[in-house]
Amino acid sequence: MYELHPDRLLPAWQPALAIAREIYESIADLPIVSPHGHTDPAWFAQNRPFDNATALLLTPDHYLLRMLASRGVSYDDLGVPRKDGAPVADPRSAWRTFAAHYHLFDGTPSRLWLDHSLQWAFGIDEELGPGSADAIYDAINAKLGEPDLRPLALLDRAKVEAIATTEFALDPLDHHRTLKEAGLLGRVRTTYRPDDVSDPDNPDFADNLTALAELTGEDVEKWSGLIEAHRKRRASFREMGALATDHGVPSAMTADLDDGAKQKLLNGALAGTLSPHEAELFRGQMLTEMAGLSAEDGMVMQIHAGSKRNTDPALMAVRGANLGADIPVPTNYVDGLQPLLARHGNAPGLRLIVFTLDETAYARELAPMAGYWPSLMIGPPWWFFDSSNGIRRYLDAVVETAGFHNLAGFNDDTRALLSIPARHDVWRREISRFLAELVAEHRLSRASARELAAHLAYQAAKDAYRL
Amino acid sequence: MYELHPDRLLPAWQPALAIAREIYESIADLPIVSPHGHTDPAWFAQNRPFDNATALLLTPDHYLLRMLASRGVSYDDLGVPRKDGAPVADPRSAWRTFAAHYHLFDGTPSRLWLDHSLQWAFGIDEELGPGSADAIYDAINAKLGEPDLRPLALLDRAKVEAIATTEFALDPLDHHRTLKEAGLLGRVRTTYRPDDVSDPDNPDFADNLTALAELTGEDVEKWSGLIEAHRKRRASFREMGALATDHGVPSAMTADLDDGAKQKLLNGALAGTLSPHEAELFRGQMLTEMAGLSAEDGMVMQIHAGSKRNTDPALMAVRGANLGADIPVPTNYVDGLQPLLARHGNAPGLRLIVFTLDETAYARELAPMAGYWPSLMIGPPWWFFDSSNGIRRYLDAVVETAGFHNLAGFNDDTRALLSIPARHDVWRREISRFLAELVAEHRLSRASARELAAHLAYQAAKDAYRL
Amino acid sequence: MYELHPDRLLPAWQPALAIAREIYESIADLPIVSPHGHTDPAWFAQNRPFDNATALLLTPDHYLLRMLASRGVSYDDLGVPRKDGAPVADPRSAWRTFAAHYHLFDGTPSRLWLDHSLQWAFGIDEELGPGSADAIYDAINAKLGEPDLRPLALLDRAKVEAIATTEFALDPLDHHRTLKEAGLLGRVRTTYRPDDVSDPDNPDFADNLTALAELTGEDVEKWSGLIEAHRKRRASFREMGALATDHGVPSAMTADLDDGAKQKLLNGALAGTLSPHEAELFRGQMLTEMAGLSAEDGMVMQIHAGSKRNTDPALMAVRGANLGADIPVPTNYVDGLQPLLARHGNAPGLRLIVFTLDETAYARELAPMAGYWPSLMIGPPWWFFDSSNGIRRYLDAVVETAGFHNLAGFNDDTRALLSIPARHDVWRREISRFLAELVAEHRLSRASARELAAHLAYQAAKDAYRL
Repeated sequence: MYELHPDRLLPAWQPALAIAREIYESIADLPIVSPHGHTDPAWFAQNRPFDNATALLLTPDHYLLRMLASRGVSYDDLGVPRKDGAPVADPRSAWRTFAAHYHLFDGTPSRLWLDHSLQWAFGIDEELGPGSADAIYDAINAKLGEPDLRPLALLDRAKVEAIATTEFALDPLDHHRTLKEAGLLGRVRTTYRPDDVSDPDNPDFADNLTALAELTGEDVEKWSGLIEAHRKRRASFREMGALATDHGVPSAMTADLDDGAKQKLLNGALAGTLSPHEAELFRGQMLTEMAGLSAEDGMVMQIHAGSKRNTDPALMAVRGANLGADIPVPTNYVDGLQPLLARHGNAPGLRLIVFTLDETAYARELAPMAGYWPSLMIGPPWWFFDSSNGIRRYLDAVVETAGFHNLAGFNDDTRALLSIPARHDVWRREISRFLAELVAEHRLSRASARELAAHLAYQAAKDAYRL
Repeated sequence: MYELHPDRLLPAWQPALAIAREIYESIADLPIVSPHGHTDPAWFAQNRPFDNATALLLTPDHYLLRMLASRGVSYDDLGVPRKDGAPVADPRSAWRTFAAHYHLFDGTPSRLWLDHSLQWAFGIDEELGPGSADAIYDAINAKLGEPDLRPLALLDRAKVEAIATTEFALDPLDHHRTLKEAGLLGRVRTTYRPDDVSDPDNPDFADNLTALAELTGEDVEKWSGLIEAHRKRRASFREMGALATDHGVPSAMTADLDDGAKQKLLNGALAGTLSPHEAELFRGQMLTEMAGLSAEDGMVMQIHAGSKRNTDPALMAVRGANLGADIPVPTNYVDGLQPLLARHGNAPGLRLIVFTLDETAYARELAPMAGYWPSLMIGPPWWFFDSSNGIRRYLDAVVETAGFHNLAGFNDDTRALLSIPARHDVWRREISRFLAELVAEHRLSRASARELAAHLAYQAAKDAYRL
Repeated sequence: MYELHPDRLLPAWQPALAIAREIYESIADLPIVSPHGHTDPAWFAQNRPFDNATALLLTPDHYLLRMLASRGVSYDDLGVPRKDGAPVADPRSAWRTFAAHYHLFDGTPSRLWLDHSLQWAFGIDEELGPGSADAIYDAINAKLGEPDLRPLALLDRAKVEAIATTEFALDPLDHHRTLKEAGLLGRVRTTYRPDDVSDPDNPDFADNLTALAELTGEDVEKWSGLIEAHRKRRASFREMGALATDHGVPSAMTADLDDGAKQKLLNGALAGTLSPHEAELFRGQMLTEMAGLSAEDGMVMQIHAGSKRNTDPALMAVRGANLGADIPVPTNYVDGLQPLLARHGNAPGLRLIVFTLDETAYARELAPMAGYWPSLMIGPPWWFFDSSNGIRRYLDAVVETAGFHNLAGFNDDTRALLSIPARHDVWRREISRFLAELVAEHRLSRASARELAAHLAYQAAKDAYRL
């Protein structure tokens, strides 16, 4: 049987193993700080039990869906809803299909996370597979009704000290209002993600700006009014606990244009007449504006750049977004962020955390930039790279130039609630491994390694996000 | 003396070494499946003895020639023929020059392959060098006449279950016809590589299309006739055992144009008036057409993208192509393959295997793409990267996102017959190493590691190529 | 206390550690050859004592300044002079600020170098920090007056056999003249770096060309006169010991234009009317001209490409260049160097050493190119990558394709005199590590490993630079 070994991911050779164990044990039980992610705030506001194993673990996890699809399993058979409402597999049947293909996840982080989740949340240590599919499905469902598997209880069990969700600029934030009334704001926070009103390629852009105008009372057809509307929405988000903003952009390009050029871009965006390059300029100018607002209001700015979204038009047409067909693209941060940094890079109030899906930028661009600009920090490995080997490549590439103190700690960035403790555990094991190898090679003292481990596992995220 | 150690390339630390040995021993003697390569079909059709050590091991091996040239050894002194017929070194003299510089190959895969070949095929375990050059040359030549050193006997000794050669679209396939008559088709197969009729930058393009028209009876001046001609040639290749096509292209760019635009490109290609961008569009459209034909006829499609060919005009002028002056270039697969995949990526019959010389694409593009699209698999490390460290970087970069089952196993892709067992042995050692380290870190069970090793060493190639 | 462990950086696992120790011990005490760097020739010509610890170790080291700045320490507080002459921190105060933030350098090469320097030069083995700042400052200052801490004595103690400084084309070379008169030329050499007269984006370009004309008596407004002026300056530099040229360029682009086009570019450069692309063409054409001159006069040509300079306009305005705001950019060598190599790549006299800040080019471009072109060698890891992990990634990426003999050995490339022995020691430990792992994996004999270690630690640099 596959078991969760206490030494998993740690270096398997001595003396590094002994050092890594000592480091890991000193941080394994620290509280979790989750300053960026995509859990559903309704879970925490309503605190209802989850429906079933499939709805909890399979359907919302695009890592699982995409891999199954890649080996010919249809999204219908996995129970993924269709826009046309045509029937798809029922939850138990989808679970069986998943279990029958579980070997596909050998060697992937999904397997690490799922095995960890099953054991941690449900005490299941049987290996998932065709023979155990029904038993595990039933065992999970039987427990889902228990009080300690409700969302807020799971946060307690996982020692989640603080968790941030992510909402678009037009979101009414009702769930966070509920949480505020319940005295839970601070434990759960929102994040301001204005992609809905900053991307002219969004087909609803003009409508969304109209909604933004109604929400804020600003004249968003003027550039200054648009920025003022953002200023107001940011303040409203802060009332719901937001400490940060987040910006999902296809490239890292920014701009620093004059007022006339900005207004012209806005006019074109509202009229729907921007060229692709102008649309990129619009997004790039908006990033620079957001950096200016962050310098002013102290919200930490996150940039997640470099994902080509919805590369399968058939999947998009039949079922929609965020189901596995987003692919990274090469991303140039040094030229891209230059206008933003030249304008605001030394602003005392600015904290900018950058994430990449282009690992070549770690050592070439992000580490040198974070190792110079006081405002810039490097976010943890993102998405496909939030994995053992991904974390190893990241630490190998960034630490020598950026040091440890320009890293923003860890984000789980997940939609899957149960993966949160699993992901943080992988991070903690990997930093223990990295630091233990430095100690074993006499590059770092044991005392410093333990301090750095605690920093990277817990304090760095609090510091970076001003929690 | 340098010896071939039984543990070579395996992890040198315990407990990984013991695990790796166990895995390696379980796969070391599996048959070889060689679904892509460039051996000469005349060898197998005629089964004649090789001429001498130099003709067998040195002159056809551009890995050796290029390294010697890089340290100032002239191609004349290595016996590489000139177009002008001027004399070059005789085989023994060339061998001596090679032996005198053998230390240049320390730390390179060429040395691993050659040492393995000398020992495996000829029982030579003396180190090649200036002092041993003549003795080894004579020992090789003395054995070349023996029956068990003829090409077909070598396939037997190496347990080659199936091997594919690669021929251009206009090739008469005479050797494969001979092999078919001898009942050897299946053991030896051809592969359809239509670069001769799909690249408008080929100076013979128009002549080649005329020849294609004659061969197929199609009107290749019309786009539909050109595609029909391909359809017929693919069928003819399948009669000679072909299960796959192969496409060597400078970039991964594809296109999906309308009929008018396609015909316009064809007109320009025949007239020789295409701009560089249009020529790339032509090749890109042709890739999309080939994917459509593969979806239809089930031939596995291989794309080898990203080699800048013939970068030394002097070498090209004096001696020709494939002698070491081809250099990789950055290659963008996510944008490049988008039109092809949007059109055919979900076609049930399509199997597309992609190879790269740009390692940055492994984790950023190819693994995410193979981990989504059901038609797409990642080919093994190609050319400069078919080496110990190259394989390590490849597995490190692709497995976590693509899993093991989106990998197409191993290809030796060689022109050097004796390197086939050597190259497969390196691959088998490296996968044993990779899997053993996963086991040692408690990321994979021993039983799964052994199953995956057998898959990657043997079955994956059969499955991927529908053998 | 943090101590310099005798096994630091060596592999910490057996049997690799024992092998690495044996290799390292065989090379640890070899003389140092430093064929490229930025030490101040005045130090050697005047041989005066250094002023104080801050002036020796902190203020000239942009690695330290940039990291401190990245965590919010101001350049004023570090004692970095301002162009406006406004006061900055005194040396002791700057040192205290540095010491208070010394933990920022955990895990970075700066810490390795500085700890090594303090112990090697001053016998200090106490850890730098807020508590020890003053004591260490005083201990250093007390020793700086001693004879064996003068620049020439330091060269002796570090066994520096030869060191090259770098001067611009218009430099009068007075310090080297002094050294020549003292019989020290050969021990100290200059290097010809004509960036001041080859970059039309330099605001002083036209004035510099006027100065070049005066210095050489050539009509530099004609292309042929400009080249002739270079020819003369190169000869003058050779009289001051120069064996090499060096070219700092934003990209690796080269050009091979006809005479008319060259003259047109020169006219535009003098008139200040070149577009950015034309300015790049000018620099690229100049690289090709320099390669031609190198083929003629035998000076080794170095290209350092791919740094985006002065990315912080505020820093540039207040204090100037080379203070930490230079960031690497993606760099394409295969397309970039094609015109130069097609023209001169096979010239018997040409030796071209290429350096990169884009690690993706190591395996994809530089190793294949160096493994083909007889003129081309790969320089050691540069700048941010002259670090333990940087060296590991470099060796991992280049050796299999380029071999060991297309590598140019080591350059320290430093402005910090005391970092020279530290940096060479890190290189020697890292090559010992790399070779030991090859031996442990039975990929290389122990005897070859020791020979290669001595080559890479010492002889390779002498050979590559024709010393």
